[in-house]
Amino acid sequence: MNTKGISIFDSTLRDGAQGKGISFSIEDRLAIVRLLDCLGIDLIEAGNPGSNPKELAFFERASSLQLQHAKLVSFGSTCRKGCDPREDRNLQALLESGTEVCVVFGKCWRFHVDSVLETTEEENLRMIRESVRWIKENGRSVIFDAEHFFDGFADDRAFAMRAVNAAVEGGADMVCLCDTNGGVFPQDAQRVVQYVVQRLPVPVSVHFHDDCGMAVANSVVSVLAGAKQVQGTFLGFGERCGNANLSAIIPNLQIKRGIECIPQENIGQLTRYAHELAAIANVEVPSGAPYVGSHAFAHKAGMHADGVIKASRSFEHVDPFLVGNKRRFPTSEISGRAVVFARVKQILPELTLHSAETQKILDEIKRLEMAGYQFEGADASFELLVRRQMGLYKPYFELKYYKIYSGAGVGEEAGASATVKVRVGDEVQLMAAEGNGPVNALDTALRKALGLFYPVLNRVKLTDYKVRVLDGESATASRVRVLITSTDGSGTFTTVGVSGDVVDASFQALQDSIEYLLLKADAQARKAEQP
Amino acid sequence: MNTKGISIFDSTLRDGAQGKGISFSIEDRLAIVRLLDCLGIDLIEAGNPGSNPKELAFFERASSLQLQHAKLVSFGSTCRKGCDPREDRNLQALLESGTEVCVVFGKCWRFHVDSVLETTEEENLRMIRESVRWIKENGRSVIFDAEHFFDGFADDRAFAMRAVNAAVEGGADMVCLCDTNGGVFPQDAQRVVQYVVQRLPVPVSVHFHDDCGMAVANSVVSVLAGAKQVQGTFLGFGERCGNANLSAIIPNLQIKRGIECIPQENIGQLTRYAHELAAIANVEVPSGAPYVGSHAFAHKAGMHADGVIKASRSFEHVDPFLVGNKRRFPTSEISGRAVVFARVKQILPELTLHSAETQKILDEIKRLEMAGYQFEGADASFELLVRRQMGLYKPYFELKYYKIYSGAGVGEEAGASATVKVRVGDEVQLMAAEGNGPVNALDTALRKALGLFYPVLNRVKLTDYKVRVLDGESATASRVRVLITSTDGSGTFTTVGVSGDVVDASFQALQDSIEYLLLKADAQARKAEQP
Repeated sequence: MNTKGISIFDSTLRDGAQGKGISFSIEDRLAIVRLLDCLGIDLIEAGNPGSNPKELAFFERASSLQLQHAKLVSFGSTCRKGCDPREDRNLQALLESGTEVCVVFGKCWRFHVDSVLETTEEENLRMIRESVRWIKENGRSVIFDAEHFFDGFADDRAFAMRAVNAAVEGGADMVCLCDTNGGVFPQDAQRVVQYVVQRLPVPVSVHFHDDCGMAVANSVVSVLAGAKQVQGTFLGFGERCGNANLSAIIPNLQIKRGIECIPQENIGQLTRYAHELAAIANVEVPSGAPYVGSHAFAHKAGMHADGVIKASRSFEHVDPFLVGNKRRFPTSEISGRAVVFARVKQILPELTLHSAETQKILDEIKRLEMAGYQFEGADASFELLVRRQMGLYKPYFELKYYKIYSGAGVGEEAGASATVKVRVGDEVQLMAAEGNGPVNALDTALRKALGLFYPVLNRVKLTDYKVRVLDGESATASRVRVLITSTDGSGTFTTVGVSGDVVDASFQALQDSIEYLLLKADAQARKAEQP
Repeated sequence: MNTKGISIFDSTLRDGAQGKGISFSIEDRLAIVRLLDCLGIDLIEAGNPGSNPKELAFFERASSLQLQHAKLVSFGSTCRKGCDPREDRNLQALLESGTEVCVVFGKCWRFHVDSVLETTEEENLRMIRESVRWIKENGRSVIFDAEHFFDGFADDRAFAMRAVNAAVEGGADMVCLCDTNGGVFPQDAQRVVQYVVQRLPVPVSVHFHDDCGMAVANSVVSVLAGAKQVQGTFLGFGERCGNANLSAIIPNLQIKRGIECIPQENIGQLTRYAHELAAIANVEVPSGAPYVGSHAFAHKAGMHADGVIKASRSFEHVDPFLVGNKRRFPTSEISGRAVVFARVKQILPELTLHSAETQKILDEIKRLEMAGYQFEGADASFELLVRRQMGLYKPYFELKYYKIYSGAGVGEEAGASATVKVRVGDEVQLMAAEGNGPVNALDTALRKALGLFYPVLNRVKLTDYKVRVLDGESATASRVRVLITSTDGSGTFTTVGVSGDVVDASFQALQDSIEYLLLKADAQARKAEQP
């Protein structure tokens, strides 16, 4: 299925959606597919099309994405007992999803066949074999997910092997050994994978859960024992304790064992992708997450910091730069310069690392980050900040004021109205609008006022709006960080605002969104004018 | 050092104190020693007495604790190069700490001896041997922490072995192999531990860091390979990505391999101890933490939940009861009727699955979930919903209306004021408040008004506030879901609101938070009145 030695299979959209507090909108899901594709993940399991009619609609939308690298995968069970696969609704949905690769899962543990499925071994083998065959006959690749394989193997090795062999007989292109309950130990993972790899004529994949805190280790030892694919979720999202965390497995294998998992040129972006995915899911990457956590290369102990400054491998197992992360010295604040500069240089290539201008930009970023701003992900606000600091930026409008009135009462719907006064050049415009809430009223009034000057703004749409409390102990008086993602139809960009007032923080992010779009439109217009 | 097969060594107070956001007061540290002692940890590394004069004072206070099980351990380096151990200040501090067991750490990696220590191998071996001997001559047990042992072993096996043999010659009771940089893979851990165990005349301990996400696995495979002690921190606190997490290692070994780590009668308290330690450290146990996380045994997928209800080992690797945790069925659109009902039954045990009341509740949950409500996590709103549907609930107040005025202008800070009118019984109260944003103003006004009737409300604090856009395509007119977590000092609870207006959604969640607290306070008062 892949010309490299091993392929990476991400289930953030399927198994990951079972994680605590995870709830993806359609737009989130499309953004995640694009992100994983850019990162160079091989296979993206996008959902279970048979579970819900909305799922099929998602596959239809996802199939119109122009993916560069990844293939979409649909997931579903074998046909039901006593059923003909040709008449099975779930298998039909797999085919209708239109994916080139389908995962079919089936039972490999005698206990499950007896007590959950309540059928005979023969019938279970038929369900596996005929289901796989039917999907294959329809021209798709099939990965057979051998549910509870490790438990089944420990309980009755021959039974478990007969189940995966039935999938091979049906024509499965790959068999994935699943530790569905997450209870396997590394020595057993290694032993079982070796056993199966030596006996199956097709490549073997593995799928671990983290209930014992060993899913990353199990995945790594399995690959070293001959598995050719790892299934997991990029940030370890998943039911219970989560799935095997690909953001740790990929660098473990690629950087430390030379086994290519994603294109080598992308490995240096791993940290950025991890934080972008977290932003879409509206969670934080745990600060101590291996490789990609903000604290993964932080040296708090004085002795360790001294050692690292003398020679980095004193207290670092890999160079943080390799995964796009950075060394931090939380008590001494020496960090980050080169990393932030690399990003500044993308905007202003003429700057040098040790110039006064660079220092000024770095100082401002530090000040804002201390105040709670976050520029990871907020690409558009970051660019505006750099340009503002360099004096390269003339705002497109000035806000004189905004005022908001809102309320709700018995038998009355909640609602809000806003008045804004803006100045563009010498002209002042007063505008009012209603909205279903204060942010909406403000946004509408602002856009109506500015649209009179800049019709291009009518193209902007806000596609996501996130709020995070920064200091929960201050209750509703907490400062909040608002991240707004907007699109002008050709691309999306994210802006940030921080304030003790959610409306004010939203205003900052809206303002940046509008300014950034106008900046971009001007740049495009200038480009179009050139011969 | 221990009559059991293996001993557990906790470094929360030493290595753990290097973790992100961790800062223990003296009282915190004493509370942690007591907690770990009650749990049945064998050795508690309480600090480095040579690092700071305050450390010695702590050891003095800690020594007055009446520990039932644990021994305190002090930690320090070998004597410095060219020094006589008898005159070394750090070793002197180890002795003055008064602990029966001392850890002495020294270098085992040629690179470190050459480049960081900048001395000869002979001098390094003398420092190790004579330091250990001096502590032993003073009647203490010594664990030699072989810093960077795995890296040193990979680089120059004979060099590393000579270093640990020097400690044995000095009389060390145990040698601990440290993966100081956290870069070791399980197969290597196993191989190296086996090699050393076969060659050293004293028991071997292991100490792993989680930089590759494999510290738990490395610890487990090391014990299975012959190590007699595991060093770690109870919740995995530690520099960079943290230390090996004992709250996962202990049940892995004890429940799943029958290797006693803590007294068997305490293993059922593991979850409670984990949450108590987290509370002292002022952090949350990650919801997906193996064994002890609140979500570690949560079944969100309908199919999994159905399976677990049929037979728990279908989708659980151990019974959550064994570690004092519990099975949970968070409600979500993916979960089925059985899951929702299991949760309803915890609130109203008398209901049956097929009653008309149950159907009514399920229908309402479905309707609200379709409208964007999410009850996974929003435990308090879920309970209120069930009680409201059953007519078992009389609201504590009625909102007549709220009105909000907010705005910002040139040179003016953003701000808001709110007016609320509420009715409690026959009394109507009008109240106004200012806030740094509309939600804060509303919250303050509401609490001021209701606090006149219900003083218990002054105890409630909001600890988290989350906002999520549900249909990003509608831009700022999107419906948003607000989740508010509150605490009354004795527990936390989460409530939810959904609206096109962020203020209105926040109001719903605030209202539920207030109603739930009053309901809880009433229940407690009734309980207290009973004989």
